[in-house]
Amino acid sequence: MLFQNITTMDENGGTQSNRFVAIKDDRIAYIGDAAPEEDFGRSYDGRGRLLLPGFYNAHAHSPMTLLRGYGENLGLQDWLATRIFPFEDKLDGNAVYWGTLLAIAESLRFGIVSTTDMYNFCEDMVRAALESGVKMNVGRAILSFNDGDDLFSLENFREAKALYASYNGAGGGRVKVDMSLHAEYTSNPGVAGQLADYMKELGAGMHVHVSETQKEHEECKERHGGKTPVEYLASLGLFDTKATAAHCVWVTDADMEILAEKGVTVASCPVSNMKLASGVCDVPRLLKKGVNVAIGTDGDASNNSLNFIEEMKFFALGNKIMKQDPTLVTPAETIRAATAAGAASQGRTDCGAIRVGNKADLIAVDLTVPNMHPVHDLANNLVYAASGSDIRLTMVDGKTLYEDGEYKTLDIEKILFETGKATDKILKALKHG
Amino acid sequence: MLFQNITTMDENGGTQSNRFVAIKDDRIAYIGDAAPEEDFGRSYDGRGRLLLPGFYNAHAHSPMTLLRGYGENLGLQDWLATRIFPFEDKLDGNAVYWGTLLAIAESLRFGIVSTTDMYNFCEDMVRAALESGVKMNVGRAILSFNDGDDLFSLENFREAKALYASYNGAGGGRVKVDMSLHAEYTSNPGVAGQLADYMKELGAGMHVHVSETQKEHEECKERHGGKTPVEYLASLGLFDTKATAAHCVWVTDADMEILAEKGVTVASCPVSNMKLASGVCDVPRLLKKGVNVAIGTDGDASNNSLNFIEEMKFFALGNKIMKQDPTLVTPAETIRAATAAGAASQGRTDCGAIRVGNKADLIAVDLTVPNMHPVHDLANNLVYAASGSDIRLTMVDGKTLYEDGEYKTLDIEKILFETGKATDKILKALKHG
Repeated sequence: MLFQNITTMDENGGTQSNRFVAIKDDRIAYIGDAAPEEDFGRSYDGRGRLLLPGFYNAHAHSPMTLLRGYGENLGLQDWLATRIFPFEDKLDGNAVYWGTLLAIAESLRFGIVSTTDMYNFCEDMVRAALESGVKMNVGRAILSFNDGDDLFSLENFREAKALYASYNGAGGGRVKVDMSLHAEYTSNPGVAGQLADYMKELGAGMHVHVSETQKEHEECKERHGGKTPVEYLASLGLFDTKATAAHCVWVTDADMEILAEKGVTVASCPVSNMKLASGVCDVPRLLKKGVNVAIGTDGDASNNSLNFIEEMKFFALGNKIMKQDPTLVTPAETIRAATAAGAASQGRTDCGAIRVGNKADLIAVDLTVPNMHPVHDLANNLVYAASGSDIRLTMVDGKTLYEDGEYKTLDIEKILFETGKATDKILKALKHG
Repeated sequence: MLFQNITTMDENGGTQSNRFVAIKDDRIAYIGDAAPEEDFGRSYDGRGRLLLPGFYNAHAHSPMTLLRGYGENLGLQDWLATRIFPFEDKLDGNAVYWGTLLAIAESLRFGIVSTTDMYNFCEDMVRAALESGVKMNVGRAILSFNDGDDLFSLENFREAKALYASYNGAGGGRVKVDMSLHAEYTSNPGVAGQLADYMKELGAGMHVHVSETQKEHEECKERHGGKTPVEYLASLGLFDTKATAAHCVWVTDADMEILAEKGVTVASCPVSNMKLASGVCDVPRLLKKGVNVAIGTDGDASNNSLNFIEEMKFFALGNKIMKQDPTLVTPAETIRAATAAGAASQGRTDCGAIRVGNKADLIAVDLTVPNMHPVHDLANNLVYAASGSDIRLTMVDGKTLYEDGEYKTLDIEKILFETGKATDKILKALKHG
């Protein structure tokens, strides 16, 4: 594929117009001001299009598409107890498979090429990722509610281990398996410490919820001799391999220094944190401390979409309003968080930037729509004025998976039908106890 | 036109599936469960579509499309002094005409059928509205910077008066002309009082900026013996006819009671208020006090789009995060603010609801996209999961003005070209002093 006469945007929002970008197999093979001599197959007319790295969703629960809009305007505890947990209790592998495919269809439409995911029935999630062509960092959520638990006898850990053995590196590296301790408040020091040791031996990454709510943050300190969730997890060694800490709304300055020192990525989830009234992640301070900050959508139940351009706008605006300072969080910082920082968080060092030799994870945004005009600055327009579904093409590893509303690897009608059916089945089961 | 087998949503978010809605001339002529016997011309296949009232944008400055993304991440005073005011100083009627047409194209794409607008060169704005077929409540901004000024000798008032005489009620009532006192801080009691008296005689409405920033709110109190902007404007009689007060971020409980008693609409502009770090309008409290609350985009320079579905999501989330309460501002309240409350604020009592006899201001939203599935509740999906540009059809007064990316009354390529040209001309003039 050869993108011709296209405007490119780098991972920091800088642009160059009238470029030629060629894809060979799964990688970017050529970037220049003129057409290359070599034949790269299909030509793509790039006039009126902006080519940029795809978005790397740094924290999600893909199968929760099935719970989109199920239970709104409830307090967090109510929402979890009366809606989320009972529904999730009825999920099975089939529902998770179709729910994940729905999330993948939605992701491709909104320019997401890769997702850091944590859930259950993960083999079915991986199957959906492999079939569709997207990238996924996935981990079986590990939870333990009894102090005496041994990690190795936990069913969810055994699943996590099996998942890693079967699928880490699958799909030519598209699928990576992380260890996912659900959170401090759903585990205990024994199990968490065992997991840290196991991970280090394996070289696996960590994906964990951290300081999402003030309650969680404060209760952790009470439980663990004043240690914050970051301090507690770090002390157990859970940040000694590549790690993603989701949310980090209530982290302290000292926490930020630990996150920076350990190279932990913070996956900020601005929409979910606003919608559930959890708070606003202090992105400017994290960046100042040198922390890698990426963007996550969280699950569809608390968002309720995977609209990544919209997520970027919330990311850029949340700190402005909370700190009463309109200079905070620039479009350049936002675009970097959505692309290169997200790719780095997933251990995808050859992704997230338009560079010769990098994997071709690319999206093309429509510049011909009225909301993208006039053009004082394309980075400003992308973050503040683009509409989520103005993405015309999404490519992963050099394969076009979505173009002009059409899916190349997904049967969208079947996905809508099957997710509806799976949802109805669960609702019926809930009704009948 | 006959919408067949379509799902309808009322102004409070309630839905009915498989409906038939017929349009005759500019009005809704029939609503039912089966096709009417009468022939209404074109049939529209409504399967996979949601039909709802169009959006009424309650506060905007349309020509500011030209400043989209021009000057970002600046403090308010810097932004105004170094970017906005110098650029606006170079505007002329031609630039405003094309800038307004760009805003209209953007509005139609995002489902806005009518806009409450305040600016300069308003004849050119009205021309754009009349040619395109949209609705507009428009007022020439009235400002006065000298205490001794007489309203009737102000050039901007003379323009406002002439605008009213020429265009109020034009286009079969599509265009309404308001009197627009820019704000308390850009006027003085003499002029404002004269305007109130003049308006009452004329029966014209008022559109005014109120308590957008804390600074403005506090300085008003210093200037006017402790009176807040609402108290000050009310005391002069400026709320004695139909009035829209934009922003109202810093209004007090006593202010809210005045707004409710006087029937003043609050046009909340959530994105602009977050982006400029002005604050968050207390929508739940205003609603509790019985105030009519509508939604505005503000100008594109401080948003930077007219993406109304996105605006609704910010409207619904802003109070959740500021008050740390996820139960605040429901989808039903949000949809009402975007439709019926906005129409009411514009004095369009036969608009804003799908009802036989009402004006046919309607939009059709795509329900076949993955982000609108599954369907637990369509109101939840519309506010939280729809993407701004998933609107497939926008109709005003029974005329389809936008459908599937095509404009029926606008030459979009010419608009993009002419707005680019007008913008470049201004930038060049600024460069050369």
